Amino acid sequence: MTYTLVLLRHGESEWNAKNLFTGWVDVPLTDKGRAEAVRGGELLKDAGVLPDVVHTSLQRRAINTAALALDAADRHWIPVKRTWRLNERHYGALQGKDKKQTLEQYGEEQFMLWRRSFDTPPPPLADDDEFSQAHLPQYADLGADLPRTECLKDVIARMLPYWESEVTADLSSGRTVLVAAHGNSLRGIVKHLDGISDEDIAGLNIPTGMPLVYELDDAFRPVTAGGTYLDPEAAAAAAAAVANQGR
Amino acid sequence: MTYTLVLLRHGESEWNAKNLFTGWVDVPLTDKGRAEAVRGGELLKDAGVLPDVVHTSLQRRAINTAALALDAADRHWIPVKRTWRLNERHYGALQGKDKKQTLEQYGEEQFMLWRRSFDTPPPPLADDDEFSQAHLPQYADLGADLPRTECLKDVIARMLPYWESEVTADLSSGRTVLVAAHGNSLRGIVKHLDGISDEDIAGLNIPTGMPLVYELDDAFRPVTAGGTYLDPEAAAAAAAAVANQGR
Repeated sequence: MTYTLVLLRHGESEWNAKNLFTGWVDVPLTDKGRAEAVRGGELLKDAGVLPDVVHTSLQRRAINTAALALDAADRHWIPVKRTWRLNERHYGALQGKDKKQTLEQYGEEQFMLWRRSFDTPPPPLADDDEFSQAHLPQYADLGADLPRTECLKDVIARMLPYWESEVTADLSSGRTVLVAAHGNSLRGIVKHLDGISDEDIAGLNIPTGMPLVYELDDAFRPVTAGGTYLDPEAAAAAAAAVANQGR
Repeated sequence: MTYTLVLLRHGESEWNAKNLFTGWVDVPLTDKGRAEAVRGGELLKDAGVLPDVVHTSLQRRAINTAALALDAADRHWIPVKRTWRLNERHYGALQGKDKKQTLEQYGEEQFMLWRRSFDTPPPPLADDDEFSQAHLPQYADLGADLPRTECLKDVIARMLPYWESEVTADLSSGRTVLVAAHGNSLRGIVKHLDGISDEDIAGLNIPTGMPLVYELDDAFRPVTAGGTYLDPEAAAAAAAAVANQGR
């Protein structure tokens, strides 16, 4: 008996296309991003990997990726659960900033520290900043949990309680679980599952719109380390492209 | 203290556009239908009628209408609940048939009996018919509840238990509730709320993509009979067009 988990990073968003730090800013998918989501759903359907329940963040690029992929897989009707704990990393004062300009302004070392350091968050974002989410109704109940900036360690700290309670509960009931989320919340899950070190996780990039399937044993350990991409060649090419962002 | 309920019929589907009886056949929205859904969400946003929870059927035209409308209203992140009890009326052996051809073949009287009689269902659809849903996984748990044909009375009988338990529970908690569903499941709710007779419900048509807002008292009775369309002129014109389908 194994459990089946599918991770799906949202397709290209308008700010991916513009090369801006996005974080919690709730930007929509591009046409390309929508097509990626549909393609992801077609891959699931073709592989016969059919989710019984979906978990998403509260952000429209993940919500709509899940909807488009599930519709393409004829699984649009499954139960949906949403949580801020699957949101993208809050990029703090970098939200809305151009990645290339930030690289030029602060230099390679600081840039890579903010992008890939495990435990160094960018400076916090002020609540009255135009790119703050502090006053949005979907986060009104968070209180002191509302982040103003996060490093990957912070993302994992707020994601894991949801993984441990909600996601593993669905897996335990035998359901195939789709998690439709973001680069960093998914990196957090992969780090946890594969036992990747704080250093090595910096080099792991998850491509957009490509279903990553994990078979998990009864202790929720991967049967195959790193899982399996349904379209492995495309995933490898896309991961390489992500690693070169900002260059 | 009043409760706020919003009813939203899905936008134009591919079979609305082709003038076919659809029922439980799971056809997608047209581009026009998607635009209607977005417009419906914009009306909600402009009116400040902001759903806290959404209930949909298991059919993609209602699911996607809800997703597009809520995205346009910046409410994409609210909890989602789905049920077959909000599905469109099962049209039995008429599913997949052309409305105009059916009218010519069976005559006005039989046609209107099937379309608008309260308690006369069309002949049942065989489970091995190409337009049957008997073998779809989303209905696998229904057992003897799975319909092969329905009249409006049948729709109300399977819809009301969900209304009485799930929808009224959300209303009671003070949430603004969006029900994104179908012509006949929504006619059933309106009949129940407004106390419309079995005869008079035949003349009631709900236009697509137009939010219909009910303020309900603490016994879930409408404060204003018939509710309020957020775009009343467009709703009246659209309802007249629905009444002339098949002509």
